[in-house]
Amino acid sequence: MAQQGITPRSDDYSQWYLDVIAAGELTDKSPVRGCMVIKPHGYGIWESIQKDLDARFKATGHVNAYFPLFIPESFLSKEADHVEGFAKECAVITHHRLRSAEGGGVEPDPAAKLEEPLVVRPTSETIIWHMYGKWINSYRDLPLLINQWANVVRWEMRTRPFLRTAEFLWQEGHTAHATQDEAMEEATKMLQVYSDFAHETLAIPVIQGVKSETERFAGAVETFTIEAMMQNGWALQAGTSHFLGQNFAKAFDVTFQTAEGTLEHVWATSWGVSTRLVGAVIMAHSDDTGLVLPPKIAPIQVVLVPIWRKDEDQERVMSFTRQVEAALQGSVRIHVDDRTKMKPGAKYFEWERKGVPLRFEIGPRDVDNNSVFCAKRTGEKKFGIEVGEDFLSIVQQHLDSIQQGLLDAALKRREENTHRIDTYEELKSLLDTQPGFFLVPWRDDADAEKAIKEDCKATIRCFPLDAQADLNGQKCFYSGEPATHMAIFARAY
Amino acid sequence: MAQQGITPRSDDYSQWYLDVIAAGELTDKSPVRGCMVIKPHGYGIWESIQKDLDARFKATGHVNAYFPLFIPESFLSKEADHVEGFAKECAVITHHRLRSAEGGGVEPDPAAKLEEPLVVRPTSETIIWHMYGKWINSYRDLPLLINQWANVVRWEMRTRPFLRTAEFLWQEGHTAHATQDEAMEEATKMLQVYSDFAHETLAIPVIQGVKSETERFAGAVETFTIEAMMQNGWALQAGTSHFLGQNFAKAFDVTFQTAEGTLEHVWATSWGVSTRLVGAVIMAHSDDTGLVLPPKIAPIQVVLVPIWRKDEDQERVMSFTRQVEAALQGSVRIHVDDRTKMKPGAKYFEWERKGVPLRFEIGPRDVDNNSVFCAKRTGEKKFGIEVGEDFLSIVQQHLDSIQQGLLDAALKRREENTHRIDTYEELKSLLDTQPGFFLVPWRDDADAEKAIKEDCKATIRCFPLDAQADLNGQKCFYSGEPATHMAIFARAY
Repeated sequence: MAQQGITPRSDDYSQWYLDVIAAGELTDKSPVRGCMVIKPHGYGIWESIQKDLDARFKATGHVNAYFPLFIPESFLSKEADHVEGFAKECAVITHHRLRSAEGGGVEPDPAAKLEEPLVVRPTSETIIWHMYGKWINSYRDLPLLINQWANVVRWEMRTRPFLRTAEFLWQEGHTAHATQDEAMEEATKMLQVYSDFAHETLAIPVIQGVKSETERFAGAVETFTIEAMMQNGWALQAGTSHFLGQNFAKAFDVTFQTAEGTLEHVWATSWGVSTRLVGAVIMAHSDDTGLVLPPKIAPIQVVLVPIWRKDEDQERVMSFTRQVEAALQGSVRIHVDDRTKMKPGAKYFEWERKGVPLRFEIGPRDVDNNSVFCAKRTGEKKFGIEVGEDFLSIVQQHLDSIQQGLLDAALKRREENTHRIDTYEELKSLLDTQPGFFLVPWRDDADAEKAIKEDCKATIRCFPLDAQADLNGQKCFYSGEPATHMAIFARAY
Repeated sequence: MAQQGITPRSDDYSQWYLDVIAAGELTDKSPVRGCMVIKPHGYGIWESIQKDLDARFKATGHVNAYFPLFIPESFLSKEADHVEGFAKECAVITHHRLRSAEGGGVEPDPAAKLEEPLVVRPTSETIIWHMYGKWINSYRDLPLLINQWANVVRWEMRTRPFLRTAEFLWQEGHTAHATQDEAMEEATKMLQVYSDFAHETLAIPVIQGVKSETERFAGAVETFTIEAMMQNGWALQAGTSHFLGQNFAKAFDVTFQTAEGTLEHVWATSWGVSTRLVGAVIMAHSDDTGLVLPPKIAPIQVVLVPIWRKDEDQERVMSFTRQVEAALQGSVRIHVDDRTKMKPGAKYFEWERKGVPLRFEIGPRDVDNNSVFCAKRTGEKKFGIEVGEDFLSIVQQHLDSIQQGLLDAALKRREENTHRIDTYEELKSLLDTQPGFFLVPWRDDADAEKAIKEDCKATIRCFPLDAQADLNGQKCFYSGEPATHMAIFARAY
C-alpha cells in the first residue's frame, strides 16, 4: 500500500482526521453511499469498546436481546415527536424480490411489492415497545432491562468516518419501569456508566449534562448527554441517555397492573453509544504522526519487533522473542511482527501510525542483555526492560501510565479551553481564536438558540449537571434576562 | 405469563420444538413477516456461541471487520451462479426518505427514489470481493483472513424460529489466498474448527462431508458441510465452508502480483454458521419437559433457589446463598432466584424449562449442613454437595459430566439411527419407520437426486469425508450403475 502523509493538525484539522484514519488502516470507503467499511484494526477498537461496555451493562443488571432490523412504516408514526425526528431520512424497503431484467442484470420484481413498506431501523424504540406491550402485564414483569447490540441506518448526505455514517454500529438500551422515579434513576445511572467508561477506558473526560429542548431526542422527555472536547476545542456528543416518560408506553398502549390492582402506563428509558466513540478516541488522543490509542482499547497493546542483520542471529533473536511473547500472552494483547521482507524502520513507522502503545525492539544485543528495548507511542526516550521476574507487571505499569497520561492530558486540555464568559461578544470573538467550551448563564429560549447557531455555528452542548448550583441570580449572557440554566456552548461534530 | 404445555416429541415433533422455544422464553414472533425477536435467554445462548467461536477464529489467525449492510443491486449479478442463488428473494431498498402522507401516516417519498436499488445483504461475498480488489495488489497482501459477525436477510415465506427466518445473525469468514492449495486447506481447516466446536461446545456430533452439486453454495467450486442428526432422525446442516476457487476474484477482477512478478487471480474461501445453531442445540438435547442446554453454552449454568418458610430463617438462608454465590462467581455462570412472591416449585419448573443444567436448592437444613441440595436438569436423584474447599471443582465436574453425557447420548442416538443400506426400497421403507442417516453407494446424478427428493423427501446431506474409502467397486443404490461416492441421504431441516 502506498505511504500516505498525514496533514498536521494545525494546517487542517478535518484533513488530519481523515489522514490518521487512512494511515492507521481503520476504515475504507465503500461503494454504498454513506456506508463505511470498518477494517480489522478499526473494528478491533470497537470490539474492545463492546467488551468493556457489555460487562458494565451486565454488572448493572441488564441482559442482551435482539429485535428485527425492519420496522413497519406505520410504527414510526405512532409517537408524534418520534416521527418528526426519525421517520424521514431512512432506508425504505418496498420489494422482497429481484427479477432478471431485459438487457441483463436484475431489477425489483413488480409482482413482489410489499403491502406495507418497511424501514431499516434508525433506532428501535417503536418495535421494542410493540414487543414490550406483549411482555408486560403486571408489576412483577418490571423492571425490564434490555440492551441490544445492532446496526442502524439513518440516511446521511454528508458523512465522515465513524462520526457520521448512514449505517453505524451501536448499542441501544431500552428499559421499562413501574415508576417515574425508577426510570429517571435508570437514565442517570446509565449516564454515569457512560461517563465512567469514557474516563476509565477511553481516557476521555466528559461533562454530564442535560440537552436543551432543541437538541433533545425525538420522543424523550429529557435527554442526558456526555460531551467530550476534541483537540481542536470542538465538542463531540459521546453518548446519550433518555428519560422517555410514558410517551412510548402511551403510543403503544403498554400498561401494567400495579401491586394495588390499578392499571398504569409504563415508564421508559433508552440509552446508546455508537461507533462514533471510535472517532472520539481518534480525535481526542492522536497526533501528527498518526493514531494514538489508550492501552485499554488498543487491539494490540505491545508489538514485538525482532531484528537481526546476520543470518546466524535469526534463531536466537526469534527464540527470545517467543519467550517474551510467552511471558505476556494471556495478560497483554501482543503481536509479533515477524515479516521478513520489511525493514525495522518501516515496521516502526507502521505501528506508530496504528497507535500501538508500546513497541519492543529485540536485537542480538537485547538477547544478550535479557531485555527488550522499549519505545512508547506517546514519546519519551527509549529504554530497556529486563525480562525478569517482574517483567509482566512492569509492562502493565507502563501501559497503565500511558492510559493515565492520556486522560491527564485530555483533562488539562479541556480545563485550558473551558471559558467562563458573560457576554455574547466574548463568545463570538473567542470561538475562532480560543475554541473550546463556553460556560454561560442562559435563559432557555429555542429561538435565541437558533439565532446563535446561525450567527456563529455554536450550539448548546448541554446544561452541565454539576454547574447548575452556580446559577443563582445571574443574567443570561445573550438576552440579559434572568438566566434559567448554566449552559455550555461550543462548536460541535 | 400463562403457563404453556409442551407437546411430547412422540406426538408432534414440530410442535414440541415450538413449545420448547415458547416455554424456554427463547424467541417471540415479531410484527415483521419472517423476522423473530430473540429474547434474552435465547440471545444468551447465541452470545455463548459467539464467544467460543470467535476465540477459535482468532486462534487460527483470523481478524474481524465490518462491511456495509447494503449491496448495490448490480453487484449481485456479477458472479453468474451467485445471482441465481441469491439475487432473487431479498429485501430491496428503493427509497431513502419517507414523507407525510395525505390522510396521515407516512409513505416513501417519490422524490427520494434511489438511482440504483440496494439489497440488504443475503451474504457478503460480492461487496467484500469488491473491497478485496482495492486491498490486494501483491502476494505480500495475502493471505487475507477476515471474519464478520453480522445480520443477513433472505426473504423466506415459510419460517421456523432459529432454523429459517428472513433475518438471521451469523458469522461469515471470507479469505483470500495466493494458491489453490492454500485456499483448499483453509476451507477444510475451518470445517474442522466447526466440527470441533460442535462436538466440544454444543455437544453435537457432526459428520464432515462434501455437498453434491445440487446443494452446493451458489458461486462455490466445492461446499463442505457439517451435518448433525436431530432426535427425530432428521438432518440439520449446522455449518458450511466453501472453496470458491477463483470465481469471485474473476467476477470482481481481483489479481495479485506473485513473487515471480506474474499477475494471477486470487483464490478464495467463505464459511459461516448462524443462529440456526441455537435451533440445532434445542432439537439435539431437549426433552418433553423443555429445554436442555449443554453447560458450555448455557447462559445460566447454576441457579440457586433459596427456600424458607419462617421469617426467622430468611436471613441465614439468604446469607448462606450469597456465600455459595461468592464461591462460584467468576468461574461459573450463576443466577440467584430471590423472587419472594413465587413458590419454590414454580421456580424449579421455570428453570427446568429454561434448560439450566444445575439447580441448587438451599433451605434452613442445608444451611445447617453447610451444603446445597443439587438437581441435575438431565435427571438422576437429587444429592447434596458440601460447600467445602472442593466445592467449586465439584460443581465444575458435574457440569463437565453433564456436557459429556449429552454428547455421548447424541452420539449413541446417531449410531443407532445410521443405516448402511444398498437399495432404494430400503430407504423408502425405513424413512418413516426408522428415520435417520442412510449411508449408500451413489452415482452422482442431479436428476436422480431430484427424483428421489420428489418421491420421498430425502436429500443428499453430504458425501462423508471419512466414508469415501469404502466405495471401491460398489453399485449405486438407486441406479445400479458403478457408484461415484458414498452418500448420506436423510430428510432434513
